[in-house]
Amino acid sequence: MRLLKAEAGEAATSMIAAISSWKSLTPRLEGLLEAPLALASVTLCAPIPRPARNIFCVGKNYHEHAKEFAQSGFDSTAKEVVPEAPVVFSKPPSAVIATGETILGSLDPTNSVDYEGELGVVIGTGGRGISKAAALGHVFGYTVINDVTARTLQQKHRQWLLGKGIDTFCPMGPAILTADEVPDPAKLTLKTWVNGELRQDAVVSDLIFDIPTLIETISSVIALEPGDVIATGTPVGVGIGFNPPKFLVKGDRVAIEISGIGRIENPVG
Amino acid sequence: MRLLKAEAGEAATSMIAAISSWKSLTPRLEGLLEAPLALASVTLCAPIPRPARNIFCVGKNYHEHAKEFAQSGFDSTAKEVVPEAPVVFSKPPSAVIATGETILGSLDPTNSVDYEGELGVVIGTGGRGISKAAALGHVFGYTVINDVTARTLQQKHRQWLLGKGIDTFCPMGPAILTADEVPDPAKLTLKTWVNGELRQDAVVSDLIFDIPTLIETISSVIALEPGDVIATGTPVGVGIGFNPPKFLVKGDRVAIEISGIGRIENPVG
Repeated sequence: MRLLKAEAGEAATSMIAAISSWKSLTPRLEGLLEAPLALASVTLCAPIPRPARNIFCVGKNYHEHAKEFAQSGFDSTAKEVVPEAPVVFSKPPSAVIATGETILGSLDPTNSVDYEGELGVVIGTGGRGISKAAALGHVFGYTVINDVTARTLQQKHRQWLLGKGIDTFCPMGPAILTADEVPDPAKLTLKTWVNGELRQDAVVSDLIFDIPTLIETISSVIALEPGDVIATGTPVGVGIGFNPPKFLVKGDRVAIEISGIGRIENPVG
Repeated sequence: MRLLKAEAGEAATSMIAAISSWKSLTPRLEGLLEAPLALASVTLCAPIPRPARNIFCVGKNYHEHAKEFAQSGFDSTAKEVVPEAPVVFSKPPSAVIATGETILGSLDPTNSVDYEGELGVVIGTGGRGISKAAALGHVFGYTVINDVTARTLQQKHRQWLLGKGIDTFCPMGPAILTADEVPDPAKLTLKTWVNGELRQDAVVSDLIFDIPTLIETISSVIALEPGDVIATGTPVGVGIGFNPPKFLVKGDRVAIEISGIGRIENPVG
Protein backbone atom coordinates (compact mmCIF):
# COMPACT_ATOMS: atom_id res chain seq x y z
CA MET A 1 0.00 0.00 0.00
CA ARG A 2 1.25 3.46 -0.85
CA LEU A 3 0.55 5.83 2.02
CA LEU A 4 0.12 9.46 1.04
CA LYS A 5 -0.27 11.57 4.16
CA ALA A 6 -2.72 13.97 2.62
CA GLU A 7 -4.85 11.14 1.23
CA ALA A 8 -5.02 9.31 4.50
CA GLY A 9 -5.74 12.44 6.50
CA GLU A 10 -6.10 12.06 10.24
CA ALA A 11 -5.21 8.41 10.18
CA ALA A 12 -1.79 9.24 8.77
CA THR A 13 -1.07 11.67 11.57
CA SER A 14 -1.84 9.04 14.15
CA MET A 15 0.16 6.61 12.06
CA ILE A 16 3.31 8.54 12.82
CA ALA A 17 2.78 7.97 16.52
CA ALA A 18 1.51 4.44 16.10
CA ILE A 19 3.80 3.27 13.34
CA SER A 20 5.01 0.39 15.45
CA SER A 21 1.57 -1.19 15.31
CA TRP A 22 1.24 -0.68 11.60
CA LYS A 23 0.00 -4.16 10.94
CA SER A 24 -3.17 -3.38 12.86
CA LEU A 25 -3.36 0.09 11.36
CA THR A 26 -3.07 -0.95 7.74
CA PRO A 27 -6.61 -2.36 7.33
CA ARG A 28 -8.04 0.86 8.77
CA LEU A 29 -6.09 2.93 6.27
CA GLU A 30 -7.17 0.68 3.45
CA GLY A 31 -10.75 1.48 4.35
CA LEU A 32 -10.05 5.18 4.14
CA LEU A 33 -8.33 4.77 0.82
CA GLU A 34 -11.36 3.14 -0.79
CA ALA A 35 -12.49 6.66 -1.71
CA PRO A 36 -9.18 8.26 -2.66
CA LEU A 37 -8.86 11.95 -3.33
CA ALA A 38 -7.53 13.29 -6.60
CA LEU A 39 -3.84 14.19 -6.22
CA ALA A 40 -4.53 17.58 -7.76
CA SER A 41 -6.97 18.37 -4.96
CA VAL A 42 -4.50 17.92 -2.09
CA THR A 43 -1.13 19.21 -0.97
CA LEU A 44 1.17 16.37 -0.09
CA CYS A 45 3.18 16.51 3.13
CA ALA A 46 6.33 14.51 3.70
CA PRO A 47 5.19 11.10 5.00
CA ILE A 48 7.11 11.71 8.24
CA PRO A 49 7.23 15.52 8.34
CA ARG A 50 9.26 15.77 11.55
CA PRO A 51 11.02 12.56 12.58
CA ALA A 52 11.36 12.20 16.36
CA ARG A 53 15.13 12.31 16.07
CA ASN A 54 17.92 12.67 13.52
CA ILE A 55 17.62 10.91 10.18
CA PHE A 56 20.31 8.25 9.81
CA CYS A 57 22.19 8.69 6.53
CA VAL A 58 24.85 6.64 4.81
CA GLY A 59 27.67 8.07 2.71
CA LYS A 60 29.65 6.50 -0.12
CA ASN A 61 27.43 3.43 -0.34
CA TYR A 62 27.43 2.76 -4.11
CA HIS A 63 30.73 1.75 -5.76
CA GLU A 64 30.60 4.10 -8.75
CA HIS A 65 29.48 7.00 -6.57
CA ALA A 66 32.31 6.33 -4.09
CA LYS A 67 34.69 6.67 -7.06
CA GLU A 68 33.19 9.90 -8.38
CA PHE A 69 33.20 11.37 -4.85
CA ALA A 70 36.86 10.46 -4.29
CA GLN A 71 37.82 11.98 -7.65
CA SER A 72 35.84 15.17 -6.99
CA GLY A 73 38.14 16.44 -4.27
CA PHE A 74 35.16 17.18 -2.00
CA ASP A 75 35.52 14.08 0.21
CA SER A 76 36.57 15.11 3.71
CA THR A 77 36.74 11.48 4.88
CA ALA A 78 38.82 10.07 2.04
CA LYS A 79 41.27 7.54 3.37
CA GLU A 80 40.01 4.99 0.87
CA VAL A 81 37.58 5.03 -2.05
CA VAL A 82 35.35 2.21 -0.81
CA PRO A 83 34.75 2.48 2.95
CA GLU A 84 35.62 -0.47 5.17
CA ALA A 85 32.45 0.11 7.19
CA PRO A 86 29.26 2.11 6.63
CA VAL A 87 29.87 5.87 6.81
CA VAL A 88 26.92 6.92 8.98
CA PHE A 89 26.03 10.55 9.65
CA SER A 90 22.78 12.36 10.29
CA LYS A 91 20.48 15.10 9.11
CA PRO A 92 18.31 17.00 11.60
CA PRO A 93 14.57 16.21 11.43
CA SER A 94 14.04 19.92 10.76
CA ALA A 95 15.53 19.53 7.27
CA VAL A 96 12.57 17.51 5.97
CA ILE A 97 10.31 19.02 3.30
CA ALA A 98 7.63 17.53 1.06
CA THR A 99 7.58 17.03 -2.67
CA GLY A 100 6.88 20.36 -4.33
CA GLU A 101 8.44 22.45 -1.57
CA THR A 102 11.46 24.61 -2.30
CA ILE A 103 15.05 23.61 -1.51
CA LEU A 104 16.55 26.83 -0.11
CA GLY A 105 19.79 26.72 -2.06
CA SER A 106 20.39 30.33 -1.10
CA LEU A 107 21.31 29.15 2.42
CA ASP A 108 24.61 27.85 1.00
CA PRO A 109 26.70 30.99 0.57
CA THR A 110 29.17 29.05 -1.59
CA ASN A 111 26.70 27.98 -4.30
CA SER A 112 27.71 24.34 -4.13
CA VAL A 113 24.31 22.69 -3.73
CA ASP A 114 24.08 19.13 -5.02
CA TYR A 115 21.35 16.46 -5.18
CA GLU A 116 21.56 12.85 -3.99
CA GLY A 117 18.65 10.58 -4.84
CA GLU A 118 18.28 7.87 -2.19
CA LEU A 119 16.05 5.06 -0.99
CA GLY A 120 14.77 5.79 2.52
CA VAL A 121 13.99 2.92 4.87
CA VAL A 122 11.33 3.60 7.53
CA ILE A 123 11.65 1.49 10.67
CA GLY A 124 8.44 -0.07 11.99
CA THR A 125 9.63 -2.20 14.90
CA GLY A 126 12.56 -0.88 16.90
CA GLY A 127 15.25 -2.68 18.80
CA ARG A 128 18.94 -2.95 19.58
CA GLY A 129 21.13 -5.72 18.23
CA ILE A 130 18.95 -6.54 15.22
CA SER A 131 20.60 -9.25 13.11
CA LYS A 132 20.91 -9.09 9.34
CA ALA A 133 18.58 -12.07 9.09
CA ALA A 134 15.86 -10.32 11.10
CA ALA A 135 16.44 -6.81 9.73
CA LEU A 136 13.83 -6.61 6.96
CA GLY A 137 11.18 -7.68 9.46
CA HIS A 138 11.79 -4.40 11.29
CA VAL A 139 11.05 -2.28 8.20
CA PHE A 140 7.72 -0.47 8.01
CA GLY A 141 8.22 0.66 4.44
CA TYR A 142 10.22 2.60 1.90
CA THR A 143 10.25 6.18 0.69
CA VAL A 144 12.25 8.51 -1.57
CA ILE A 145 14.78 10.96 -0.13
CA ASN A 146 16.90 13.68 -1.66
CA ASP A 147 20.02 14.00 0.51
CA VAL A 148 20.68 17.56 -0.65
CA THR A 149 24.23 18.65 0.15
CA ALA A 150 26.24 21.88 0.14
CA ARG A 151 29.52 20.39 -1.06
CA THR A 152 31.78 23.21 0.07
CA LEU A 153 30.36 23.15 3.60
CA GLN A 154 30.46 19.34 3.66
CA GLN A 155 34.19 19.51 3.03
CA LYS A 156 34.99 22.63 5.07
CA HIS A 157 33.50 21.36 8.32
CA ARG A 158 34.93 17.80 7.93
CA GLN A 159 31.92 16.25 9.65
CA TRP A 160 28.89 16.49 7.40
CA LEU A 161 26.10 17.83 9.62
CA LEU A 162 26.34 21.45 8.45
CA GLY A 163 26.78 20.59 4.77
CA LYS A 164 23.85 18.18 4.76
CA GLY A 165 21.59 19.26 7.60
CA ILE A 166 20.63 22.64 6.17
CA ASP A 167 16.98 23.64 6.50
CA THR A 168 14.94 22.20 3.56
CA PHE A 169 17.81 19.91 2.48
CA CYS A 170 15.84 16.68 3.01
CA PRO A 171 12.95 16.36 0.55
CA MET A 172 11.03 13.15 1.39
CA GLY A 173 8.03 11.44 -0.15
CA PRO A 174 5.71 11.27 -1.94
CA ALA A 175 4.57 8.20 -0.01
CA ILE A 176 5.68 5.27 2.06
CA LEU A 177 5.41 2.00 0.22
CA THR A 178 4.74 -0.55 2.95
CA ALA A 179 7.15 -3.44 3.23
CA ASP A 180 4.50 -6.05 2.36
CA GLU A 181 4.61 -4.70 -1.22
CA VAL A 182 8.40 -4.96 -1.46
CA PRO A 183 9.50 -8.59 -1.34
CA ASP A 184 13.08 -7.59 -2.18
CA PRO A 185 14.12 -3.92 -1.78
CA ALA A 186 17.36 -4.66 -3.65
CA LYS A 187 15.28 -4.84 -6.84
CA LEU A 188 13.98 -1.28 -6.55
CA THR A 189 15.28 1.11 -9.19
CA LEU A 190 16.12 4.79 -8.66
CA LYS A 191 16.25 7.61 -11.19
CA THR A 192 17.10 11.30 -10.71
CA TRP A 193 16.51 14.11 -13.18
CA VAL A 194 17.60 17.75 -13.10
CA ASN A 195 15.40 19.91 -15.32
CA GLY A 196 14.34 16.74 -17.11
CA GLU A 197 17.89 15.50 -17.78
CA LEU A 198 18.49 11.99 -16.41
CA ARG A 199 21.43 12.09 -13.98
CA GLN A 200 21.12 8.96 -11.80
CA ASP A 201 19.84 5.55 -12.90
CA ALA A 202 20.59 2.70 -10.52
CA VAL A 203 19.39 -0.47 -8.88
CA VAL A 204 19.41 -0.76 -5.09
CA SER A 205 21.22 -4.10 -5.41
CA ASP A 206 24.35 -2.08 -6.22
CA LEU A 207 24.59 -0.88 -2.60
CA ILE A 208 27.98 -1.59 -1.01
CA PHE A 209 26.36 -2.18 2.40
CA ASP A 210 22.85 -3.54 1.89
CA ILE A 211 19.81 -2.65 3.98
CA PRO A 212 20.11 -5.59 6.41
CA THR A 213 23.78 -4.69 7.01
CA LEU A 214 22.89 -1.04 7.68
CA ILE A 215 20.15 -2.01 10.16
CA GLU A 216 22.47 -4.47 11.90
CA THR A 217 25.31 -1.94 12.07
CA ILE A 218 23.30 0.98 13.41
CA SER A 219 21.21 -1.07 15.84
CA SER A 220 24.31 -2.71 17.30
CA VAL A 221 25.00 0.53 19.20
CA ILE A 222 21.84 2.66 18.88
CA ALA A 223 18.44 1.11 19.54
CA LEU A 224 16.31 1.78 16.46
CA GLU A 225 12.89 3.30 17.12
CA PRO A 226 9.60 3.12 15.19
CA GLY A 227 9.54 6.00 12.71
CA ASP A 228 13.32 6.17 12.34
CA VAL A 229 14.40 6.83 8.77
CA ILE A 230 17.60 5.52 7.19
CA ALA A 231 18.70 7.18 3.94
CA THR A 232 20.75 4.43 2.36
CA GLY A 233 23.16 6.38 0.13
CA THR A 234 23.21 7.74 -3.40
CA PRO A 235 24.37 6.15 -6.65
CA VAL A 236 26.71 7.62 -9.27
CA GLY A 237 25.64 10.74 -11.14
CA VAL A 238 25.63 13.56 -8.61
CA GLY A 239 26.65 17.08 -9.63
CA ILE A 240 30.24 16.82 -8.40
CA GLY A 241 30.72 13.78 -10.60
CA PHE A 242 30.93 16.15 -13.58
CA ASN A 243 33.95 18.25 -14.50
CA PRO A 244 33.29 21.06 -13.85
CA PRO A 245 30.68 20.19 -11.23
CA LYS A 246 27.03 20.77 -12.15
CA PHE A 247 25.73 22.43 -9.01
CA LEU A 248 22.06 23.27 -8.59
CA VAL A 249 21.08 26.87 -9.23
CA LYS A 250 17.96 28.87 -8.50
CA GLY A 251 15.09 27.77 -10.70
CA ASP A 252 16.34 24.21 -11.21
CA ARG A 253 13.95 21.34 -10.57
CA VAL A 254 15.16 18.03 -9.15
CA ALA A 255 12.99 14.94 -9.56
CA ILE A 256 13.70 11.54 -8.01
CA GLU A 257 11.67 8.43 -8.65
CA ILE A 258 11.89 4.96 -7.15
CA SER A 259 9.95 2.11 -8.71
CA GLY A 260 6.68 1.46 -6.92
CA ILE A 261 7.09 4.29 -4.43
CA GLY A 262 6.67 7.30 -6.66
CA ARG A 263 8.35 10.56 -7.50
CA ILE A 264 9.36 13.67 -5.58
CA GLU A 265 10.11 16.89 -7.40
CA ASN A 266 11.46 20.04 -5.78
CA PRO A 267 12.38 23.45 -7.13
CA VAL A 268 15.58 25.14 -6.00
CA GLY A 269 15.25 28.63 -4.56
CA MET B 1 19.25 29.99 38.99
CA ARG B 2 20.22 26.34 38.91
CA LEU B 3 17.39 24.24 37.55
CA LEU B 4 17.29 20.65 38.74
CA LYS B 5 14.51 18.81 36.97
CA ALA B 6 13.61 16.66 39.93
CA GLU B 7 13.49 19.67 42.23
CA ALA B 8 11.24 21.66 39.95
CA GLY B 9 8.91 18.75 39.26
CA GLU B 10 6.01 19.36 36.90
CA ALA B 11 7.15 22.86 36.09
CA ALA B 12 10.38 21.53 34.68
CA THR B 13 8.55 19.20 32.33
CA SER B 14 6.52 22.07 30.95
CA MET B 15 9.76 24.08 30.84
CA ILE B 16 11.11 21.80 28.16
CA ALA B 17 8.17 22.66 25.93
CA ALA B 18 8.05 26.30 26.96
CA ILE B 19 11.76 26.99 27.20
CA SER B 20 11.45 29.82 24.71
CA SER B 21 9.40 31.81 27.21
CA TRP B 22 11.78 31.14 30.05
CA LYS B 23 11.87 34.71 31.19
CA SER B 24 8.20 34.47 32.16
CA LEU B 25 8.69 30.96 33.51
CA THR B 26 11.62 31.76 35.76
CA PRO B 27 9.64 33.56 38.49
CA ARG B 28 7.24 30.60 38.72
CA LEU B 29 10.13 28.19 39.14
CA GLU B 30 11.73 30.43 41.73
CA GLY B 31 8.53 30.15 43.72
CA LEU B 32 8.67 26.38 43.59
CA LEU B 33 12.29 26.41 44.63
CA GLU B 34 11.60 28.32 47.83
CA ALA B 35 11.07 24.98 49.50
CA PRO B 36 13.81 22.91 47.92
CA LEU B 37 14.04 19.17 48.39
CA ALA B 38 17.14 17.51 49.77
CA LEU B 39 19.25 16.14 46.92
CA ALA B 40 19.44 12.79 48.68
CA SER B 41 15.65 12.50 48.57
CA VAL B 42 15.32 12.77 44.78
CA THR B 43 16.62 11.09 41.67
CA LEU B 44 17.96 13.62 39.21
CA CYS B 45 16.97 13.41 35.56
CA ALA B 46 18.97 15.00 32.79
CA PRO B 47 17.71 18.59 32.52
CA ILE B 48 16.59 17.91 28.95
CA PRO B 49 16.06 14.15 29.01
CA ARG B 50 15.08 13.81 25.36
CA PRO B 51 15.97 16.80 23.17
CA ALA B 52 13.51 17.35 20.32
CA ARG B 53 16.24 16.69 17.79
CA ASN B 54 19.92 15.80 17.56
CA ILE B 55 22.38 17.37 19.95
CA PHE B 56 24.83 19.61 18.11
CA CYS B 57 28.42 18.73 19.03
CA VAL B 58 31.75 20.30 18.16
CA GLY B 59 34.98 18.36 17.66
CA LYS B 60 38.60 19.47 18.04
CA ASN B 61 37.66 22.80 19.62
CA TYR B 62 40.48 23.25 22.17
CA HIS B 63 44.06 23.70 20.85
CA GLU B 64 45.81 21.20 23.13
CA HIS B 65 43.07 18.61 22.61
CA ALA B 66 43.29 19.03 18.83
CA LYS B 67 46.99 18.19 19.15
CA GLU B 68 46.49 15.13 21.34
CA PHE B 69 43.74 13.88 18.99
CA ALA B 70 45.92 14.31 15.90
CA GLN B 71 48.79 12.48 17.60
CA SER B 72 46.55 9.64 18.78
CA GLY B 73 45.95 8.24 15.32
CA PHE B 74 42.20 8.05 15.97
CA ASP B 75 41.25 11.19 14.01
CA SER B 76 39.27 10.26 10.91
CA THR B 77 39.04 13.89 9.78
CA ALA B 78 42.70 14.82 10.12
CA LYS B 79 43.74 17.06 7.26
CA GLU B 80 45.04 19.60 9.75
CA VAL B 81 45.53 19.70 13.52
CA VAL B 82 43.51 22.87 14.13
CA PRO B 83 40.36 22.93 12.02
CA GLU B 84 39.73 25.86 9.68
CA ALA B 85 36.04 25.84 10.63
CA PRO B 86 34.02 24.27 13.44
CA VAL B 87 33.80 20.48 13.11
CA VAL B 88 30.08 19.98 13.81
CA PHE B 89 28.50 16.57 14.22
CA SER B 90 25.58 15.25 16.23
CA LYS B 91 24.52 12.78 18.87
CA PRO B 92 20.98 11.35 18.84
CA PRO B 93 18.69 12.64 21.62
CA SER B 94 18.29 9.01 22.69
CA ALA B 95 21.88 8.97 23.98
CA VAL B 96 21.11 11.30 26.91
CA ILE B 97 21.31 9.95 30.46
CA ALA B 98 21.32 11.67 33.85
CA THR B 99 24.07 11.95 36.41
CA GLY B 100 24.34 8.66 38.26
CA GLU B 101 23.11 6.53 35.35
CA THR B 102 25.38 3.93 33.80
CA ILE B 103 27.37 4.48 30.60
CA LEU B 104 26.92 1.18 28.74
CA GLY B 105 30.55 0.73 27.72
CA SER B 106 29.76 -2.88 26.85
CA LEU B 107 27.98 -1.62 23.70
CA ASP B 108 31.42 -0.87 22.20
CA PRO B 109 32.71 -4.29 21.15
CA THR B 110 36.21 -2.85 20.72
CA ASN B 111 36.65 -1.61 24.33
CA SER B 112 37.74 1.86 23.26
CA VAL B 113 35.37 3.98 25.36
CA ASP B 114 36.65 7.46 26.19
CA TYR B 115 35.29 10.45 28.13
CA GLU B 116 35.05 14.06 26.95
CA GLY B 117 34.03 16.68 29.51
CA GLU B 118 32.21 19.56 27.80
CA LEU B 119 30.24 22.71 28.42
CA GLY B 120 26.72 22.38 26.99
CA VAL B 121 24.88 25.47 25.76
CA VAL B 122 21.06 25.32 25.91
CA ILE B 123 19.29 27.55 23.39
CA GLY B 124 16.38 29.63 24.71
CA THR B 125 15.37 31.72 21.72
CA GLY B 126 15.73 30.14 18.31
CA GLY B 127 16.41 31.65 14.95
CA ARG B 128 18.38 31.47 11.72
CA GLY B 129 21.22 33.81 10.89
CA ILE B 130 22.04 34.75 14.49
CA SER B 131 25.05 37.09 14.57
CA LYS B 132 27.97 36.64 16.97
CA ALA B 133 26.99 39.90 18.64
CA ALA B 134 23.46 38.68 19.34
CA ALA B 135 24.36 35.04 20.08
CA LEU B 136 24.57 35.03 23.87
CA GLY B 137 21.12 36.62 24.02
CA HIS B 138 19.75 33.40 22.51
CA VAL B 139 21.20 31.22 25.28
CA PHE B 140 18.83 29.86 27.92
CA GLY B 141 21.59 28.46 30.09
CA TYR B 142 24.52 26.12 30.50
CA THR B 143 24.94 22.51 31.53
CA VAL B 144 27.61 19.79 31.76
CA ILE B 145 27.93 17.11 29.09
CA ASN B 146 30.10 14.04 28.78
CA ASP B 147 30.59 13.42 25.04
CA VAL B 148 31.39 9.75 25.57
CA THR B 149 33.05 8.22 22.51
CA ALA B 150 33.97 4.75 21.26
CA ARG B 151 37.26 5.70 19.61
CA THR B 152 37.58 2.67 17.36
CA LEU B 153 34.07 3.13 15.97
CA GLN B 154 34.61 6.90 15.62
CA GLN B 155 37.56 6.18 13.36
CA LYS B 156 36.21 3.09 11.57
CA HIS B 157 33.01 4.76 10.34
CA ARG B 158 34.75 8.06 9.36
CA GLN B 159 31.70 10.11 10.28
CA TRP B 160 31.25 10.13 14.05
CA LEU B 161 27.57 9.34 14.62
CA LEU B 162 28.08 5.66 15.45
CA GLY B 163 31.16 6.24 17.62
CA LYS B 164 29.52 9.02 19.60
CA GLY B 165 25.78 8.43 19.36
CA ILE B 166 25.71 5.13 21.23
CA ASP B 167 22.87 4.66 23.71
CA THR B 168 23.81 6.19 27.11
CA PHE B 169 26.85 8.00 25.64
CA CYS B 170 25.58 11.49 26.51
CA PRO B 171 25.45 12.06 30.28
CA MET B 172 24.00 15.55 30.90
CA GLY B 173 23.33 17.59 34.03
CA PRO B 174 23.08 17.95 36.94
CA ALA B 175 21.32 21.25 36.25
CA ILE B 176 20.97 24.12 33.83
CA LEU B 177 22.58 27.29 35.11
CA THR B 178 20.48 30.06 33.55
CA ALA B 179 22.32 32.61 31.45
CA ASP B 180 21.54 35.48 33.80
CA GLU B 181 23.98 33.92 36.27
CA VAL B 182 26.77 33.64 33.68
CA PRO B 183 27.91 37.09 32.58
CA ASP B 184 30.82 35.55 30.64
CA PRO B 185 30.73 31.83 29.82
CA ALA B 186 34.39 31.99 28.72
CA LYS B 187 35.32 32.26 32.40
CA LEU B 188 33.73 28.93 33.35
CA THR B 189 36.20 26.23 34.36
CA LEU B 190 35.87 22.51 33.62
CA LYS B 191 37.41 19.55 35.41
CA THR B 192 37.13 15.82 34.68
CA TRP B 193 38.14 12.97 36.98
CA VAL B 194 38.31 9.23 36.35
CA ASN B 195 38.16 7.26 39.60
CA GLY B 196 39.16 10.44 41.42
CA GLU B 197 42.21 11.14 39.21
CA LEU B 198 42.09 14.60 37.63
CA ARG B 199 42.32 14.24 33.85
CA GLN B 200 40.96 17.50 32.40
CA ASP B 201 41.36 21.00 33.88
CA ALA B 202 40.53 23.85 31.54
CA VAL B 203 38.97 27.27 31.10
CA VAL B 204 36.28 27.76 28.45
CA SER B 205 38.18 30.81 27.15
CA ASP B 206 40.60 28.32 25.57
CA LEU B 207 37.99 27.31 22.98
CA ILE B 208 39.22 27.65 19.39
CA PHE B 209 35.72 28.65 18.19
CA ASP B 210 33.92 30.45 21.01
CA ILE B 211 30.23 30.13 21.83
CA PRO B 212 29.08 33.14 19.76
CA THR B 213 31.00 31.77 16.75
CA LEU B 214 29.40 28.33 17.15
CA ILE B 215 25.89 29.80 17.37
CA GLU B 216 26.53 32.02 14.35
CA THR B 217 27.99 29.15 12.32
CA ILE B 218 25.25 26.60 13.04
CA SER B 219 22.37 29.08 12.76
CA SER B 220 23.61 30.34 9.41
CA VAL B 221 22.27 27.16 7.80
CA ILE B 222 20.07 25.47 10.43
CA ALA B 223 17.51 27.54 12.36
CA LEU B 224 18.22 26.98 16.04
CA GLU B 225 15.21 25.96 18.15
CA PRO B 226 14.41 26.48 21.84
CA GLY B 227 15.76 23.51 23.77
CA ASP B 228 18.57 22.80 21.30
CA VAL B 229 21.79 21.77 23.01
CA ILE B 230 25.28 22.54 21.70
CA ALA B 231 28.16 20.55 23.24
CA THR B 232 31.07 22.90 22.67
CA GLY B 233 34.02 20.51 22.56
CA THR B 234 36.44 18.93 25.03
CA PRO B 235 39.82 20.16 26.33
CA VAL B 236 43.08 18.21 26.52
CA GLY B 237 43.28 15.17 28.77
CA VAL B 238 41.05 12.54 27.20
CA GLY B 239 41.99 8.85 27.38
CA ILE B 240 43.56 8.69 23.90
CA GLY B 241 45.90 11.52 24.91
CA PHE B 242 47.86 8.96 26.91
CA ASN B 243 50.28 6.42 25.49
CA PRO B 244 49.00 3.75 25.71
CA PRO B 245 45.45 5.12 25.75
CA LYS B 246 43.57 5.01 29.04
CA PHE B 247 40.18 3.74 27.93
CA LEU B 248 37.30 3.43 30.36
CA VAL B 249 36.60 -0.03 31.73
CA LYS B 250 33.68 -1.53 33.60
CA GLY B 251 33.50 -0.19 37.12
CA ASP B 252 35.21 3.13 36.36
CA ARG B 253 33.51 6.33 37.48
CA VAL B 254 33.76 9.53 35.41
CA ALA B 255 33.01 12.85 37.09
CA ILE B 256 32.83 16.22 35.32
CA GLU B 257 32.36 19.53 37.06
CA ILE B 258 31.89 23.03 35.66
CA SER B 259 32.11 26.03 37.96
CA GLY B 260 28.69 27.23 39.07
CA ILE B 261 26.77 24.50 37.22
CA GLY B 262 27.69 21.45 39.24
CA ARG B 263 28.97 17.95 38.79
CA ILE B 264 27.85 14.85 36.93
CA GLU B 265 29.24 11.47 37.82
CA ASN B 266 28.54 8.26 35.91
CA PRO B 267 29.68 4.68 36.38
CA VAL B 268 30.78 2.64 33.38
CA GLY B 269 29.04 -0.70 32.86
